[in-house]
Amino acid sequence: MPLLEPLYNIVELCALHGISDAIICPGSRSAALTLAFARNSRIRTRVIADERSAAFVALGMAMQSGDTVALVCTSGSAALNFAPAIAEAYFQEIPLLILTADRPPEWIHQYDGQTIFQENIYGKHVKKAYNLPVDYNHKDAQWQMQRLANEAIHLCQSVPKGPVHVNVPIREPFYPEGNERVFPIVQQVYFIPQKAVLSSEAWVDLLDIWQKSERKLIAIGQNSEDLNEELSGLSVEEGVVVLADIISNVGVEEKISSHDVFLSKAQNLKPDLLITVGKSFISKGFKQYIRNHKPSYHWHIQPHPDLIDPTQSISHKIEVSAKYFFKELLETTDLQKLKTGDEEEENDYFLEWSGLKEVSLRYLNKFLNNVDFGELKAIAMLLESLSADFVLHLGNSMPVRYANILGGISKEGFEVSANRGTSGIDGIVSTAIGQALKTTKTVVCLVGDVSFFYDSNALFFGELPQNLRIVMINNGGGNIFRIIDGPSKQDELESHFVTSQTRTAESLAMESGIRYLKATNMIEMAEGLEIITKGDPRAALLEVFTDGQADAEIFKALKAGFIL
Amino acid sequence: MPLLEPLYNIVELCALHGISDAIICPGSRSAALTLAFARNSRIRTRVIADERSAAFVALGMAMQSGDTVALVCTSGSAALNFAPAIAEAYFQEIPLLILTADRPPEWIHQYDGQTIFQENIYGKHVKKAYNLPVDYNHKDAQWQMQRLANEAIHLCQSVPKGPVHVNVPIREPFYPEGNERVFPIVQQVYFIPQKAVLSSEAWVDLLDIWQKSERKLIAIGQNSEDLNEELSGLSVEEGVVVLADIISNVGVEEKISSHDVFLSKAQNLKPDLLITVGKSFISKGFKQYIRNHKPSYHWHIQPHPDLIDPTQSISHKIEVSAKYFFKELLETTDLQKLKTGDEEEENDYFLEWSGLKEVSLRYLNKFLNNVDFGELKAIAMLLESLSADFVLHLGNSMPVRYANILGGISKEGFEVSANRGTSGIDGIVSTAIGQALKTTKTVVCLVGDVSFFYDSNALFFGELPQNLRIVMINNGGGNIFRIIDGPSKQDELESHFVTSQTRTAESLAMESGIRYLKATNMIEMAEGLEIITKGDPRAALLEVFTDGQADAEIFKALKAGFIL
Repeated sequence: MPLLEPLYNIVELCALHGISDAIICPGSRSAALTLAFARNSRIRTRVIADERSAAFVALGMAMQSGDTVALVCTSGSAALNFAPAIAEAYFQEIPLLILTADRPPEWIHQYDGQTIFQENIYGKHVKKAYNLPVDYNHKDAQWQMQRLANEAIHLCQSVPKGPVHVNVPIREPFYPEGNERVFPIVQQVYFIPQKAVLSSEAWVDLLDIWQKSERKLIAIGQNSEDLNEELSGLSVEEGVVVLADIISNVGVEEKISSHDVFLSKAQNLKPDLLITVGKSFISKGFKQYIRNHKPSYHWHIQPHPDLIDPTQSISHKIEVSAKYFFKELLETTDLQKLKTGDEEEENDYFLEWSGLKEVSLRYLNKFLNNVDFGELKAIAMLLESLSADFVLHLGNSMPVRYANILGGISKEGFEVSANRGTSGIDGIVSTAIGQALKTTKTVVCLVGDVSFFYDSNALFFGELPQNLRIVMINNGGGNIFRIIDGPSKQDELESHFVTSQTRTAESLAMESGIRYLKATNMIEMAEGLEIITKGDPRAALLEVFTDGQADAEIFKALKAGFIL
Repeated sequence: MPLLEPLYNIVELCALHGISDAIICPGSRSAALTLAFARNSRIRTRVIADERSAAFVALGMAMQSGDTVALVCTSGSAALNFAPAIAEAYFQEIPLLILTADRPPEWIHQYDGQTIFQENIYGKHVKKAYNLPVDYNHKDAQWQMQRLANEAIHLCQSVPKGPVHVNVPIREPFYPEGNERVFPIVQQVYFIPQKAVLSSEAWVDLLDIWQKSERKLIAIGQNSEDLNEELSGLSVEEGVVVLADIISNVGVEEKISSHDVFLSKAQNLKPDLLITVGKSFISKGFKQYIRNHKPSYHWHIQPHPDLIDPTQSISHKIEVSAKYFFKELLETTDLQKLKTGDEEEENDYFLEWSGLKEVSLRYLNKFLNNVDFGELKAIAMLLESLSADFVLHLGNSMPVRYANILGGISKEGFEVSANRGTSGIDGIVSTAIGQALKTTKTVVCLVGDVSFFYDSNALFFGELPQNLRIVMINNGGGNIFRIIDGPSKQDELESHFVTSQTRTAESLAMESGIRYLKATNMIEMAEGLEIITKGDPRAALLEVFTDGQADAEIFKALKAGFIL
């Protein structure tokens, strides 16, 4: 058996299990993996030098497609540069198969180059960490490698999806003699997923609570499953309130959004029954409202066993998929209505939320009509310009906050994503590039200047996908610190928090070949949006210049009006 | 007691223990630490947004000064971006105190923003990881915090020096009410280091070996301790061969360098007694030579207990400082000479090495006189232009290899450093900036294009130190893969290994305000070097354009001549 064959087999197993994309970071120790991926006709490889950016690109691809993306690097600190994106993948439940080449164990901590402690290097931020054997002459060791590879690849996709680490110690020689392209037959294991359903006994108990709860609220956090039909049915037929953060991807007419505008001051919105679905909520106001106004019952629908309770109120943890749950619930309640002859109902609770929603949207629209150009206005204009042909990837810090407040004013139907697993600012543009590679829609990345420059290497990802649009709000620093209460009162605000910067993206854009546009006022913004959303099919970067101080004042004025 | 007081106390303890520099990454959760550092008159703070670059800047500062540098970030993936520099610090034994703000433990993995598993996040790449209590109302908890802070700060400097992690969970509120500047009295613990010496019994045994070993070789790996007097004495008076990698900072006239030129083909250089000092050796040829020609005795001098043996030949591990050891050795052998009346001696073994060194240097000089302009020539010219007023920081991959081969032709007396702890390409420019901040000498960073662009955010570190010079060799990609044997024979050489790129540093230089110079031939190179080493006291970047293919051919031709 050729020495490198067991390494090629890992890659062949990836292909057999349906992995179709790999991001490769160049290196010598990892060469056998690189070559096996490059020479596998069923897998498309892309090569990126900055491992931090590379891992975020892989994250974006897996986020968009739902499929596992393989990620390969050489030994040493390369593996550590993957870590920020892996933590994000863990908390956002994105499937990544991380293959890190390693020195053989006997050379670790012997002052040899590119040798660090790679075993379990991602700690608790991977679902599982495998360490492959370094010697595989014995046939049991070969069997072990295949077994572990099968298990690792499967584990990425099992619920909850997530990153899985396979550390691969490799001895020299790293390169095959010739251009070997024949791969050996390997043993693929088929995994048969079990479908989780609820017993009829469980349904009896739940329906009892459902019926005796008058004020029902369904709240959706970060989510990409299409629940529109079921949620619309429950809303129209049962008068259930559906509250949806902008990253919930819920497109139901009756839904409540822009709830940050009224929630902090609302008094009488406590539900009897709260049902939550999805991962994190952007709206701090919503989480705090529920913490302070605990529902009698709180069902959290989540098909895996971790107990995650950011509103501190869960009474029932229901381990099935949200789609299955709402479908069953809707059918059962429909059937009961048929039996009892009840009508569709709009109850007081529903009307109260709807009323607040109307008032909020009127307030937002009026405020936006009168406000000067700045980041608020720019983001509102962007949201209004998008339609179902777009994916909007929101940067952390301010973009995601603005978008959630303004959610109600945007048109329907475009997908929304954000790195809310760890809420880092470290790989936002790279993630959007990854998404653009895996969709035919146009991906718009809304990002602040600090995040954009942090991840500027993203622009030098080989050839940028033409369906990428970056809208960067440049107000000269981390303006969030001017907006939140604490730091704005400190002497060190500018020096130690805002970290003012005077860069613009123009020269980076020129170097990377992406079309560059800029906007400093409403007219230029409208023109810029017209070009990037309709006029020009090429990748583009729209840099929006606003004044940080003025932006902070506008935001404070907007919030002052939240007292309805 | 004000809520944030125990956090201020940690910073006050840093000052009491002599920490004078802190690198701050902006964040809200970490605000109390940021403010305490900013307001402590004995500590100078610098603020950097990209945590990866920030940590390498701190590394460079601690590398240059030997003093502990504090490094502060907020919660979430920020902490993970520190990891590459921390691994480098661990293996290079550089003292860093890493303070990561964290969410309180009850909010971890609850879909709350910027919350990851921070406890022990750096795994085995820190000397120790502390997790401070989140509640400190009880006086025992306050005592615990101070005790742990004292211990952590001390541990950075105890042998072997290295990074220490203090994770600091912090509840809201993050900001003090006003601009508090009064710090409470804290309890500083004084640590009294023990001085390691050898017993007279141990000396008797060692001197017995010393006397019966005719062929003695002292080899120095990465080292910054000044051993010149002792090594010169041993070389001149005892005829000991001193072999010094370029990162050994040994300035002894008799030393052997450029040993890569002859070691791979040498036959009769096996020592009876090998003494090694320092951390990693760049020269793979040296390590392999000793592995294949094991000495009868091998003493490794290292004042801490890890057993690290890259030549696979250690017979005695001697846990004292190299300075103490060589000083004692020299005095004892001097004394014996006095007693016995022996003369200074140049033995055959010494003459054999010296002869090979002479031949090598003649070969190198002849080759360099006839070679076309390219990266080899450019690096040779740089080495020849430096003197004792400079610190040379070598990038990994090719720069460090070239410099070690060419070591013998350079002038004496300039300091040399390199990130050979992990040999990563990820933070080379940032490290050099950190060094420049802590020395009055001029720091020259020699770096390849892939490494330079990987770390391009380094240039946007506030105001660049004026004593920084970057010499970047731009040959359009990771040319090392053209030079080492394996990848150059693969079809995927260009696409999956070299990762060709066409960027130049000019626009980055313009944006960051650093003076930009370029060189495409020998005359421009000489002019550029003249300006950056003598003519202009400002920070400058000299981009040297060479042809990757031609560079690879030149390198192969150079190596072909190594068969002496």
